[in-house]
Amino acid sequence: MNRSQAMYVYLNAFIEELSRNGVRHVVYCPGSRSTPLAMRLAEHPRIRCWLHLDERSAAFFALGMAKRLREPVALLCTSGTAAVNFAPAVVEAHYARVPLVVLTADRPPELRDAGAPQTIDQVHLYGRHVRWFMEMALPETSPELLRYVRTVAAKAVALAQGSFPGPVHLNFPFREPLVPEPPPEMTAGERDPWSGGRMPLGDRGEECRDGRRLGNPVDGWHDGNLRSGGEAPYVAVRSGRLVLDDGTIERLAGWLSGTKRGVIVCGPQTDPAFARAVGKLAERLQYPLLADPLSQVRCGRHPLSAVVEMYDALLRVTAFAEKAKPEVVLRFGALPVSKPLLQYLSRHADARQIVVDGHAMWHDPVFSAAEVLQADPAWVCERLCVQLGEAAQPQNRGAFAGEGRKTGGEWLSWWQKANRLARQTVERRMSDADAVAGDADTGLFEGRLFPELAGLLPEGCLLYVGNSMPVRDLDSFFPALQKELFFLANRGANGIDGVVSSALGASAAGEEPVILVIGDLSFYHDLNGLLAAKLHRLNLTVILVNNDGGGIFSFLPQAEHPEHFEALFGTPHGLSFEPVVKMYGGRYRRVGDWEQFSQAVRTSLEKGGLSVIEVPSRRDANLNAHRQIWREVAQALEASL
Amino acid sequence: MNRSQAMYVYLNAFIEELSRNGVRHVVYCPGSRSTPLAMRLAEHPRIRCWLHLDERSAAFFALGMAKRLREPVALLCTSGTAAVNFAPAVVEAHYARVPLVVLTADRPPELRDAGAPQTIDQVHLYGRHVRWFMEMALPETSPELLRYVRTVAAKAVALAQGSFPGPVHLNFPFREPLVPEPPPEMTAGERDPWSGGRMPLGDRGEECRDGRRLGNPVDGWHDGNLRSGGEAPYVAVRSGRLVLDDGTIERLAGWLSGTKRGVIVCGPQTDPAFARAVGKLAERLQYPLLADPLSQVRCGRHPLSAVVEMYDALLRVTAFAEKAKPEVVLRFGALPVSKPLLQYLSRHADARQIVVDGHAMWHDPVFSAAEVLQADPAWVCERLCVQLGEAAQPQNRGAFAGEGRKTGGEWLSWWQKANRLARQTVERRMSDADAVAGDADTGLFEGRLFPELAGLLPEGCLLYVGNSMPVRDLDSFFPALQKELFFLANRGANGIDGVVSSALGASAAGEEPVILVIGDLSFYHDLNGLLAAKLHRLNLTVILVNNDGGGIFSFLPQAEHPEHFEALFGTPHGLSFEPVVKMYGGRYRRVGDWEQFSQAVRTSLEKGGLSVIEVPSRRDANLNAHRQIWREVAQALEASL
Repeated sequence: MNRSQAMYVYLNAFIEELSRNGVRHVVYCPGSRSTPLAMRLAEHPRIRCWLHLDERSAAFFALGMAKRLREPVALLCTSGTAAVNFAPAVVEAHYARVPLVVLTADRPPELRDAGAPQTIDQVHLYGRHVRWFMEMALPETSPELLRYVRTVAAKAVALAQGSFPGPVHLNFPFREPLVPEPPPEMTAGERDPWSGGRMPLGDRGEECRDGRRLGNPVDGWHDGNLRSGGEAPYVAVRSGRLVLDDGTIERLAGWLSGTKRGVIVCGPQTDPAFARAVGKLAERLQYPLLADPLSQVRCGRHPLSAVVEMYDALLRVTAFAEKAKPEVVLRFGALPVSKPLLQYLSRHADARQIVVDGHAMWHDPVFSAAEVLQADPAWVCERLCVQLGEAAQPQNRGAFAGEGRKTGGEWLSWWQKANRLARQTVERRMSDADAVAGDADTGLFEGRLFPELAGLLPEGCLLYVGNSMPVRDLDSFFPALQKELFFLANRGANGIDGVVSSALGASAAGEEPVILVIGDLSFYHDLNGLLAAKLHRLNLTVILVNNDGGGIFSFLPQAEHPEHFEALFGTPHGLSFEPVVKMYGGRYRRVGDWEQFSQAVRTSLEKGGLSVIEVPSRRDANLNAHRQIWREVAQALEASL
Repeated sequence: MNRSQAMYVYLNAFIEELSRNGVRHVVYCPGSRSTPLAMRLAEHPRIRCWLHLDERSAAFFALGMAKRLREPVALLCTSGTAAVNFAPAVVEAHYARVPLVVLTADRPPELRDAGAPQTIDQVHLYGRHVRWFMEMALPETSPELLRYVRTVAAKAVALAQGSFPGPVHLNFPFREPLVPEPPPEMTAGERDPWSGGRMPLGDRGEECRDGRRLGNPVDGWHDGNLRSGGEAPYVAVRSGRLVLDDGTIERLAGWLSGTKRGVIVCGPQTDPAFARAVGKLAERLQYPLLADPLSQVRCGRHPLSAVVEMYDALLRVTAFAEKAKPEVVLRFGALPVSKPLLQYLSRHADARQIVVDGHAMWHDPVFSAAEVLQADPAWVCERLCVQLGEAAQPQNRGAFAGEGRKTGGEWLSWWQKANRLARQTVERRMSDADAVAGDADTGLFEGRLFPELAGLLPEGCLLYVGNSMPVRDLDSFFPALQKELFFLANRGANGIDGVVSSALGASAAGEEPVILVIGDLSFYHDLNGLLAAKLHRLNLTVILVNNDGGGIFSFLPQAEHPEHFEALFGTPHGLSFEPVVKMYGGRYRRVGDWEQFSQAVRTSLEKGGLSVIEVPSRRDANLNAHRQIWREVAQALEASL
């Protein structure tokens, strides 16, 4: 078998095994060295190839897909800086725990550090930011090598989607010629191994060297744990769930049932089973549920009665944050967006703060955690509920124990009352803020976007939000709703890069509409990402909050240094994005008021395709409107405390 | 002194030392964590800040500046994926040996791996692709720490621009508050240390702890080796030149003077002293000088008589490549672009092939080098000339020794005759090729761009070319000229990324006009880079060769697989770039013939600003035109051999 033929068989085995372990999508950027993988992947009937031309955008597109699907998405590029352009999304995936299988093509060993063109050191290219790196063997077709390459594929998928999901990186050296060819001795059926489901070599169905047949399909391995298309993988990996021993749960439940002043904090996470479990637990314990929208707990058809969504406004008020002193904090998910919430956790570091996280790298930059339960969060909630008993009446309805110490149902209802007060104040203020910052010239108030959207989003909609201000305003102003909504943001490294592509990837991964709320700097950063909407005819409604620069800096101490502020932080660019959106085949509408905004969102959702709705904002007016709202909430709250 | 004040003094010392060691430019991307460095850099009177909003483009902009200036350019960004976006240009700088001083801001140690927002592992972020990485100390103002931070600055600059230039990376942890403040006890003069030239602390002029004055300025250190603005640095580094011992040069010169069939190959390099030295050496030895345009040897006011620029066409002809068998090859610079030239080196691996390179990581992917002279290339040429004697008559004018063996002047004139033949054939063919691919609908022949440009470029002009086809056509078709021109391309990793920004950085670094020739995929990849033209009112003429996809792939074996070709390799995007160029304030002109092309280039050079001149091309016609030319050269050559 010549080199092209060996490549063909070896890569068939690898790709088929990826597929049988559940990889359904590959995001691909053109190049020469990657030809063998690209040509074999393109022919696979159960893997869809998504072409991109900018590797940075491509990788974020894959990230967005993988986040929505909660399954590994493959990425492929050629050698050189192409692979380096994947790095921002790989780093984001590492910290956000998103499964990616990164495949890079490389020169063979003899052409490295030799001055060969387009050749860089790709070994451990992403450093510590991957779960696994493998420098692959050159293609060969001995049974050992075919078993090896299938095993690597299975291991890569398993590591990417395990209890600590994230990116894996496989670097493939290829010698010329780069076009794979079917071996002539293969039958027609063997040449098209995927339609027949049988791999020519290295498959379980094949005779092993010692004559023992391993059996294909393997009995009993066709279960729901495997998402492959009907054929068993060569290695089927079953990943366990992290559970604690009964004693730990019993002791914790016992103590919680006697503890009145508890708070549950939910940060970003995407497990669909979690919201119901934690919602029930909060009701059971009568603890307020401080739910970041990105936790998927603030909105949905699960129990919402304990959700307190205005915590960002409430906890800015020192007197409230002090009175709301908890005995116990149960924390789930990644770090919540709200800084006042973080300060609250820091202020009460003497409370028994319990962090539940599937991985020992829990998030706690204020070092307030006292216990870490390394276990599946939904499982912990479910088991605690069981342990606490399925009694119809919630626990912890004890008597109010005097000033500064609220207990049981009164504790929760005290939070709920404050929550209502804050919500009413904010809602009342929204129209006034609108008067301050209320038309296309003076700009609209950015915070009002989210209450407006709350009414407009259809059931099942996915809201992707950019970092910097959108994710903060989402947290501050999106109400708790009995509506299935899905919220995503890139909170692994909180970058403003790649957000357009992430949202487009999420759109490509499902049927329900995706709306992206993004600031102008972040939108500019990933303008290239819009090409995917054109190439793949994707639907996306982009709400572009345009304040011509870095809006978040107005909120920071740097803003008090006017001699540098605009040049270093405000950084106005003066861009009008309409032409570039049209270049990518999108519609563009700049709105002047909230009525136009609603119409534009509705129109975009009806028509599909790419729409960009520009919401003009002024940074100074927006800052003032935010401050005015927080002041009024503080006044209302202090009057009632 | 509080933390803000310590930061102020510590960073003053660092930045002043960077400046005194020759850093004049910093390319800056906004962020919060980088505030301390940004605010102090912005106030420095001898460092110019270039704002960018996309870190990937920013880093390539710095690369382009540093390449043209041949001096270290600093880069600054905030923490997180911002720093990762620098990586493609850092990798390019590593392989292309371009001096960059990369400054990244980071959270302090206690906030790492703690879930703090926008925090990633930045320690050794760029892996092996930097000359040096330092995790900096937190700002303090003890005399030791100020001496430390000044020493690090000096070392960073020295490593970046040493005999093996490249990027260095300093990672600065900063604690809040992030706005640096002048210490109140400082006098007005001390608060503005740069105007007075005296640093408050850590300066040589200051009393050391033991009372000994170190003296400022230090006598005798104000020499031309230091490019600082009048004040001596705390540490002045003098970098030596790599020279060989006299015996080595004598022996080599002796052997060369008796060796008739020699060839000098010049690959990419930017030392302005090299062209004259190698030009003289080639004339002295009567060896053909195969000069890649990127070697800066093909065009200029230096001795050009030995330049053979049509080698790419000649060496495609097997009979010629065989007859042109050399006894010795002298190679300078990085890997030349021409694949036929590389194959020629490989074919004659039994010749005494000598590579001259300042660093042991010489470029030789065909493993033909027999000797490596690790020394300064210009110095080697100069010393060889001295050793060979300044005789008016060139050496090696021996008699022609029969078929297949040419000696001395006849050897060179044989090459020169073939070169003239190839040049005449190409010139004649250009108009025919134009007939094949000659208007806006059928497309223009891409190769003709460079002969056309050769006549249009003003003296001193810088031509930046994109990778993939432009750099190959430049090599194939740009004639040797008695005109000072400067040629740049990103040949470290040969990426198509960041090329627009690199050219804009080169434009920002000098007065003479810059022209960029780039394909449509590469242009798309770095569209964001165009913002710099708008923000900084830069001049750049972009010649956009638009064949709607990946033109180079038509030349590769992949093109024989039509079932995948367009989807995986041709990858048409259908973009019309005019709107986005206009968004960035540029002019756009699509030309239909070469007359319009010449007018458009002249107009752009006259008017300044950003102009994009689109040259439409068809991939199939372009491929045929190239093949036709190579066929005709082969026919002409075979007839004459």
